[in-house]
Amino acid sequence: MEHDVTWQRVWVNAEEAWSLCVDDRGLAYGDGLFETMRCRAGAIPLLERHLARLAESASRLRIPIDVDMLRDEIGRFCSLPVDGGSGAVIKLIVTRGRGGRGYAVSAANPPTRVLLRRALPSYPHRWWDEGVAVRYCDIRLGMNTALAGIKHLNRLEQVMARLEWDDSDIAEGLMADQKGRIVEGVSSNLFLVTGGRLITPPIEDCGVAGVMRGLILDEAPRLLGLPSVTGRCERALLAAAQELFLCNAVVGVWPVRRLGSRTWPVGPITRKVQAHVAAIFGS
Amino acid sequence: MEHDVTWQRVWVNAEEAWSLCVDDRGLAYGDGLFETMRCRAGAIPLLERHLARLAESASRLRIPIDVDMLRDEIGRFCSLPVDGGSGAVIKLIVTRGRGGRGYAVSAANPPTRVLLRRALPSYPHRWWDEGVAVRYCDIRLGMNTALAGIKHLNRLEQVMARLEWDDSDIAEGLMADQKGRIVEGVSSNLFLVTGGRLITPPIEDCGVAGVMRGLILDEAPRLLGLPSVTGRCERALLAAAQELFLCNAVVGVWPVRRLGSRTWPVGPITRKVQAHVAAIFGS
Repeated sequence: MEHDVTWQRVWVNAEEAWSLCVDDRGLAYGDGLFETMRCRAGAIPLLERHLARLAESASRLRIPIDVDMLRDEIGRFCSLPVDGGSGAVIKLIVTRGRGGRGYAVSAANPPTRVLLRRALPSYPHRWWDEGVAVRYCDIRLGMNTALAGIKHLNRLEQVMARLEWDDSDIAEGLMADQKGRIVEGVSSNLFLVTGGRLITPPIEDCGVAGVMRGLILDEAPRLLGLPSVTGRCERALLAAAQELFLCNAVVGVWPVRRLGSRTWPVGPITRKVQAHVAAIFGS
Repeated sequence: MEHDVTWQRVWVNAEEAWSLCVDDRGLAYGDGLFETMRCRAGAIPLLERHLARLAESASRLRIPIDVDMLRDEIGRFCSLPVDGGSGAVIKLIVTRGRGGRGYAVSAANPPTRVLLRRALPSYPHRWWDEGVAVRYCDIRLGMNTALAGIKHLNRLEQVMARLEWDDSDIAEGLMADQKGRIVEGVSSNLFLVTGGRLITPPIEDCGVAGVMRGLILDEAPRLLGLPSVTGRCERALLAAAQELFLCNAVVGVWPVRRLGSRTWPVGPITRKVQAHVAAIFGS
């Protein structure tokens, strides 16, 4: 869900740089994490949620990060002057660092931090206004509770899923787990409104526990007066839903307009969540 | 199964370099492949097997590699003068290249090639002579037929498995799939001798189809007069095996001396396979 743009600024370990040591474990093994964050007027509205997820993920992967140092570094990076509009995307990559003995980790090497900044992607306005067309992907997500939820750098399944289509009218693909249950989009999480409840698939065996997903789960009950729950989502449940929408921390909320043979108008619940998120982003 | 050493030589896209563009998809998504090859007197005895696996894997991942160009490049890299012994390990990383639109691939960018050379790892001689002690890992391998067999850069499961122990007497850990069936070592494949057959776990749902595993499967019948087959390996089958050994394209063959509460002397089949591989490596 990101458009091709030039990175406007790049820091590696807090210094301007465009390259990384070739023996970094991020390259060798995908041994690291990333966050893709929306920046507004030099600040990231959801920064604390991003940092909380990063900290929890790093703890699970036993990558020793210093969250206060990262917060400070991200703050300084966001405040750098950049030509162009006020909105931007900040991508943070944190790897376990360099070297080690093959897979074995060398405790001597600190994590590597990469910060990248680019302009907001320029998707068509109608994707927010009228919704997006979505497809089902063939490739499925491997299941492993040890890695589920973590936004780590092992993302070949998503790359292969995204290779399945090149129709630019299709905004996103939905991915199922090994049992055929729909879990998420290639780079978004999924919500549906059905039976008076807001439902999103559980992220227990696979999938990314998205920051925007977390925000919506937390804030929907107060905002909507509806219970928000996790629940298994078979294709039939999606086809029968009153409303469907996708979300992530860059685009906010996209209503689903078409999936398979079914189409939807943009529903009132989706619109309310979308407006709430847009207000946070100032968009 | 690799010891920490300094890389003696590094090429990035056929030029001496120690760094990689920060927007390479190898870092962003683990979107690439690698081969770890043993070099002897400036040549790689199993080069064609490595290239064949690489080509098949690249085809499955739709990474457009030029095998003839790679063969030539590896040949020139191996023949560079290096201080020290004649044996070396050559690691090749091939990524899908730079950039693209998020997960979506830009066809304009060619794959990135990284070649690294280091001395052979210095494991204790007794690991070959008397065998190695091995443990079972807790973390399991996710299952996905779309990626099974491929030596890709998504290796977090192996990193997490290797973090489970730091006892330097334990040479390797065995990893099971989600159903508890033993599939491979963290950086090796597994064979067992039982009931007059040589058995290795199938690489269908997960695991790496190792080059040394392929060689042994192909050559064992003629070498040993035994059928070599793939078969599901529960822990009970391992505990009851007459012989167990591990293999990869760097160390060759390590007999398993101890696993759990069971110990084995080095068996005659293992010794024969080991000698065969050592002759290929000239070691």
